[in-house]
Parts: sequence; C-alpha cells; structure tokens
Amino acid sequence: MIALNLIGIGTGNPDHLTAEAVRAMNEADLILLPRKGSARSDLIDLRRTICAAVLSRPVRVVEFDMPVRDASGNYVQAVQDWHDAIATAWRDQIAAHLPQGGRLALLVWGDPSLYDSTLRIAQRLLAGGMAMTVRVVPGITSIQALTAAHAIPLNPLAGAVTITTARALRDHGWPQGVDTVVVMLDSGCAFEAIAPQGVSIWWGAYLGMAHQALEHGPLAETGPRIAALRAELRQRHGWIMDVYLMRRV
Amino acid sequence: MIALNLIGIGTGNPDHLTAEAVRAMNEADLILLPRKGSARSDLIDLRRTICAAVLSRPVRVVEFDMPVRDASGNYVQAVQDWHDAIATAWRDQIAAHLPQGGRLALLVWGDPSLYDSTLRIAQRLLAGGMAMTVRVVPGITSIQALTAAHAIPLNPLAGAVTITTARALRDHGWPQGVDTVVVMLDSGCAFEAIAPQGVSIWWGAYLGMAHQALEHGPLAETGPRIAALRAELRQRHGWIMDVYLMRRV
Ligand SMILES: C[S@@+](CC[C@H](N)C(=O)[O-])C[C@H]1O[C@@H](n2cnc3c(N)ncnc32)[C@H](O)[C@@H]1O
Ligand SMILES: C[S@@+](CC[C@H](N)C(=O)[O-])C[C@H]1O[C@@H](n2cnc3c(N)ncnc32)[C@H](O)[C@@H]1O
Repeated sequence: MIALNLIGIGTGNPDHLTAEAVRAMNEADLILLPRKGSARSDLIDLRRTICAAVLSRPVRVVEFDMPVRDASGNYVQAVQDWHDAIATAWRDQIAAHLPQGGRLALLVWGDPSLYDSTLRIAQRLLAGGMAMTVRVVPGITSIQALTAAHAIPLNPLAGAVTITTARALRDHGWPQGVDTVVVMLDSGCAFEAIAPQGVSIWWGAYLGMAHQALEHGPLAETGPRIAALRAELRQRHGWIMDVYLMRRV
Repeated sequence: MIALNLIGIGTGNPDHLTAEAVRAMNEADLILLPRKGSARSDLIDLRRTICAAVLSRPVRVVEFDMPVRDASGNYVQAVQDWHDAIATAWRDQIAAHLPQGGRLALLVWGDPSLYDSTLRIAQRLLAGGMAMTVRVVPGITSIQALTAAHAIPLNPLAGAVTITTARALRDHGWPQGVDTVVVMLDSGCAFEAIAPQGVSIWWGAYLGMAHQALEHGPLAETGPRIAALRAELRQRHGWIMDVYLMRRV
C-alpha cells in the first residue's frame, strides 16, 4: 500500500511552506524529486534546499529524470502522453525504492490543484490498479505570491475572477463576464493580444525567489516594458516563469 | 510610521500557517483581533488559539469590536460604508495602542487577496494620510482547502476557472466560457439556480476545522443532499461557511 502525499511547497520562498507541509515531508519514507533538465536546474536546487532546510529526520530523498513533453502536434494530446510517461516513471521509482509500500511524498510547486499534473498522474496509477491513497497538502500558489508581492486584491469588490492560460487568452481573447483575469503558463507575452485601453496589469516573475521581478501599470505603457524586461531576464537566467493579473478599470 | 502586516492564516487549520506568517506574528508590536459577534465566536476563538500556539514572544494582542454591516439597501454601497466604519475602528485602535507607530499585524482569514476587505481598508487609511507601509503574507485559501480535501485539481486540463460569488451566480448564471466555477460567499444554496444536467459539484463547509463536512457528486442528486445537510449543520453550529466547485463534464 502506497500513501501518496502531494505536498504544495509554494513557488520559491521556503518560508511559504506550511507546518503541515513540513510535517508531511518529515513523515515520508521516500521523497521523489523530479529532474527537469538543465535550464531549470535552479528549481531542483530549490527543492534540495527545502529538503535540507526542513527535514529533521533522515528521510530518503531520490532524484529521477522527468520524461520530456513532445512539443510538436496537438497540445492536449501531447500533455496526456507526457502524463502517461510520468506515471510510468513514478511506477518504476516506487517499484525500485518502496517495493513493500510506504509513505511517498512529492514536492509540488505552488499548490497541487493549480495547473499541475501530479493529481492527474496519481489518477493514472490508481486506474492502473495501484493500491494507493492520495492526500493533498495545500501550498501557496504563484497567484497568491503575485497578489501578495503587489499587495493587491485578487477579485474586484463583489466581483468575479477568471484564471486562465496564455494559450486560452490568445485563442479566445479576454474572458467574457469578468473584469479581472489571471494568466499563467505564458511562454511569450500573451497580454499583447489584448486591446490595452482601460486595462491595468500587475506582473511578477521568479516570485518568492532572490531575483523576483515586479511591474505594474496601464497595459498600454507597461506591456512593452514587461516584454523588454522579460526577454532580458530570460536571457540572463536561462529560464523565466511569470504570472500576471489584468484588470479592466 | 505604521508597518501594517496583513497575515493570511488559512481557514481553520492552524497547521496551514506558513513559516512566514508565524515569523510576522512574532515580529509584531501589536496584533489586532476583530470580534465579529457571538454567532461566529468559534472564529475569534480560533485566532486566539493560533496566537497561543505560535507566539513565542510576549506580543501584545488586543481585541476590538467590528462594526456591523447594514444588511438593507444597495449591497456594494453597504459594503463600502462598512469598510469606512472598519477603517475608523482601525484608526482608533492604532491611536490607542500604537501612538508612536510600530509593527501592526492583522490575522486575515485564508489569503488576504481573496474576498477580503483588509487591503481595501488599508487603502482608506493611506488615502486619509496615515504614514503606513502595507505588507501581505499569503495564506492558504478556502478554495485550496476545498480542492485539497477532495484531492481534485482546480482547473480542467489546459482550461480556465472562474471564481465568483453566490450573488453573481444567481444574477448572471453560469459564467460564460468556462467549465469550472468556484462559488464563495453563499448565504443560501445558489447552486440551485443552475441547471444541473452534466454538472458535478464538490462542496466543503468548515474546511480545516474539526467539524469539516464534504460532499461531492452529480449536482442533480448531490445538490438536495447538500441543502439538507447545510441546514442541519447551520442549525447545529449556529453558523456555517462553505465553498464549492462545480464542473461541467
Ligand atoms: C505548471 S504551472 C504550476 C503552478 C503552481 N502549481 C502554482 O500553484 O502556482 C506553472 C506556472 O505557474 C506560474 N508560476 C509558478 N511559479 C512562479 C513563480 N515563482 N513566479 C512567477 N510565476 C510562477 C507561471 O505562470 C508558470 O507558467
Ligand atoms: C469573506 S470570504 C474570505 C475568504 C478567505 N480570504 C479565503 O482566502 O478563503 C468568506 C468566504 O470564504 C469561504 N470560506 C472561508 N473559510 C471557509 C471554510 N473554513 N470552509 C468553507 N468555506 C470557507 C466561504 O465561501 C465564505 O463565504
């Protein structure tokens, strides 16, 4: 029997871990850390740092290579194939390191509910017949790191918010019926697809990390500034992760 | 000079506090705890419990009575008047207990960005000329407590999510362009306003607390069950707070 713990660890600031997350890490028999390729080596370094900082017991920590997502072809199909491959990788690690069962922990960036694949991968293991319980430990999301860094509310007073992806923003434009939109998973500058009149943006990259960057202001002026800064930061660090909130005022 | 810290404390489970929240509480010169009337006395008790559990220094903790919101008339206007009254109450507490300035902490339910008034009230103090810095410490939201308790993703794969209020759901129906909706601030059962065909619901009340209640399933069958349970729990505990996610499948 595997007791899987999907532990949200926040988005870069080790102080964003909750007491529940620290306890769940310490109670694990095995922590699996995915290696995602060299460009983002900061991210596995950060997970190692977190383990070193919060583990007060000799918990076994094993790193494994993550399969790479096929960047060609249909996006949703590619993601699903990728999840299948990750499920196989988890199964192999479990067979190798927890053959008798036990408590398995995975450190999930931000919160496990938000644009994260681990719950869907766990679903595949369950569907494949693995005897497993799944527990989720919530963590601070990049959206909260963004609104906290800017000290802004997420929702307008009594109003709604849509959280979406850059892809959906490009394909469908500003979501209907809301004045606030949060955009994640942007590999470019999808805000450029929006008519900027009357829109303000609050942007953050590397939130919670040493090189956190923030910008905000009317989209018309701030958009080009973000585009230039983003290119420069990406060049400098070799990778970038950013999230932004846009509000019609 | 006032250094205001708005500290997200999660929604009932003291283990959901982050290390940053614990540190900010301990570094405060004054923690103000709002008293919101007897029905919800569990909530101020919980804040007291959190203070007792995490304060390792003799931080001054002062309770004050929150103004009551006018339930008649225009909703948004009533909320704004109420925020004005709370701003006055904060100003009085600061004048009485931090006349020379210092670090003021407020413990905010969940995360300060999400359907919470403290940032808007701080804005009023700043607009009124108070010399003050505002720092936000993010906390686990009730939405994350919900998705963690059910071990479900918030967003559909590559899809968007709208977070809204019961009032907006009743007034405008299912938000356009999304398959997942999260509903907060429901004083009734606003899900009853939705055509249930093809919709599933994941519901949670008192999340993170001892009497946490969860239900999920197709809305057609689960909605009436939730309505009955909700009435019973509200009767039993004297108050209820719930949040739910609905998904079109
Ligand atoms: C695969 S999703 C994972 C989100 C994560 N589960 C969370 O709760 O934030 C990755 C996206 O999250 C956002 N993100 C995550 N960490 C971030 C950070 N430290 N700074 C800015 N954006 C971040 C970016 O939009 C990025 O494209
Ligand atoms: C004024 S809002 C504050 C939300 C809070 N800032 C957060 O981050 O969750 C109150 C609403 O949050 C939700 N909520 C807060 N705590 C909850 C809990 N423990 N269980 C269920 N719902 C909760 C309910 O929808 C409630 O009407």
